[in-house]
Amino acid sequence: MDRALVNGIPSEHIDIHNRGLHYGDGLFETIAVIDGTPRLWERHMQRLLGGAQRLNYPPVDTRLLQSEANRLCASRDRAVLKIIITREAEARGYRVGSEANIIRIVACYDWPDYPEEFAEQGIAVRICTTRLGSNPGLAGIKHLSRLEQVLARSEWQESHIPEGLMLDYEGHVIEGTQSNLFIVNNNQLLSPDLSQCGIAGIMRELVIEQAAVLDIELDEAPLTLQDVMGADEVFICNSLTGIWPVNKIEETKFSIGNMTRRLMKKLRPILYEPVATDA
Amino acid sequence: MDRALVNGIPSEHIDIHNRGLHYGDGLFETIAVIDGTPRLWERHMQRLLGGAQRLNYPPVDTRLLQSEANRLCASRDRAVLKIIITREAEARGYRVGSEANIIRIVACYDWPDYPEEFAEQGIAVRICTTRLGSNPGLAGIKHLSRLEQVLARSEWQESHIPEGLMLDYEGHVIEGTQSNLFIVNNNQLLSPDLSQCGIAGIMRELVIEQAAVLDIELDEAPLTLQDVMGADEVFICNSLTGIWPVNKIEETKFSIGNMTRRLMKKLRPILYEPVATDA
Repeated sequence: MDRALVNGIPSEHIDIHNRGLHYGDGLFETIAVIDGTPRLWERHMQRLLGGAQRLNYPPVDTRLLQSEANRLCASRDRAVLKIIITREAEARGYRVGSEANIIRIVACYDWPDYPEEFAEQGIAVRICTTRLGSNPGLAGIKHLSRLEQVLARSEWQESHIPEGLMLDYEGHVIEGTQSNLFIVNNNQLLSPDLSQCGIAGIMRELVIEQAAVLDIELDEAPLTLQDVMGADEVFICNSLTGIWPVNKIEETKFSIGNMTRRLMKKLRPILYEPVATDA
Repeated sequence: MDRALVNGIPSEHIDIHNRGLHYGDGLFETIAVIDGTPRLWERHMQRLLGGAQRLNYPPVDTRLLQSEANRLCASRDRAVLKIIITREAEARGYRVGSEANIIRIVACYDWPDYPEEFAEQGIAVRICTTRLGSNPGLAGIKHLSRLEQVLARSEWQESHIPEGLMLDYEGHVIEGTQSNLFIVNNNQLLSPDLSQCGIAGIMRELVIEQAAVLDIELDEAPLTLQDVMGADEVFICNSLTGIWPVNKIEETKFSIGNMTRRLMKKLRPILYEPVATDA
């Protein structure tokens, strides 16, 4: 069973001159595979195309990606699909060759066995010391230059703390190292503004949409650490885990509230059951 | 003749799961090779070690790197040596394995044939639209997350404009896409403060040192575009080109001044002639 394709060809190697390696010049998507199918495919492709446009990439053939993804995932009950898009390196240096083609890397990984209690009983999170730099030009997109997340994730080793929250240099809480953040205050759902930094997650987008379906008022706004620590409910989400309630931030405890439970219930069928409109 | 070594073994490929590719988790050096010898080796290694410390890397064996560099460069009159240091990927995700070893990529490229008049008559530069985000935690080090430079360099194609200047979001001029910046105002040498963003170049360090030897007053300070456009002299520098005077920024012309010439003259033997203290 192949585990990775580079431009459609089974391979575990890439060219040493790859621009993704040299310059972080590229984009990625991390996709949950359930019963052989990459979930929320269209949404992941929409974000990828948006990022490609922001980086002035030539057209990305998402049908080709889909056939490659299906090739790798078809026989997998549960897996993680990672797609990396980068550009051909025609010469040394930052400049991109005018004829530089897209390079597609599609790889399939084992599903990480998160403890079930993370979703059921919530998780403990910490506050990272490493901060996110601001750059509106790159904010939101899922590009390969992720050194800040690497540094933040290296701050702790405790396996019972699955996530850490990252602030920007103005003291606003932006996201987790690999998840987006929501809080509930006075029955209002809030999620950090991502116009200056952070990644606009697929699961975050879905939570925002489903909140509207449930008539839950939502605001995307700059959130201080005080806002978060004083919240009635806190949860994080990403494409692999869905929603995880937060029951503790450093030494402060939180209950799993009604709004978090309602959103989790609403999301479950979209994430785990076949949906005709999102194949 | 081998052109690249991965962990000491001739290769043109790296593992598809390389953390430099996935996360920009790594550092690099671009070094001028003259008469078979990588120039300013000790300085490049000092910066690499400093970056490795900032990123919590295990010890980097610079003697091993030197022997690999010499293997690739020994028969080259002129070449560009690129060294990339990254970490082993033990599993998917930002988290670094506790046993993750260093991966060394050493590659030799042809010397770029810059027109001689760039150094002699100066160059035209442009002002890039792409800005540098601020992150004091990563400022100064030469890490692999360089998407901002890629975007800035993709703004123009004209071959007679070899460089573009980049500003931060506060409007300060920081550096060129692949060079550092100096200006001269009222006989004072100024170079942008790099505490918030930018790369602290080896040639910049050398210019600063040689300015002191020449009793030239120097200040590292935030510089506005107005400061730069109103300067008496402007020059850029990097490890491959040494100093290039700037004779034009967008439509504004500049003369090549005395201070620029004095520094170029002072640097020449250090860059191009064998120096016992810097082998």
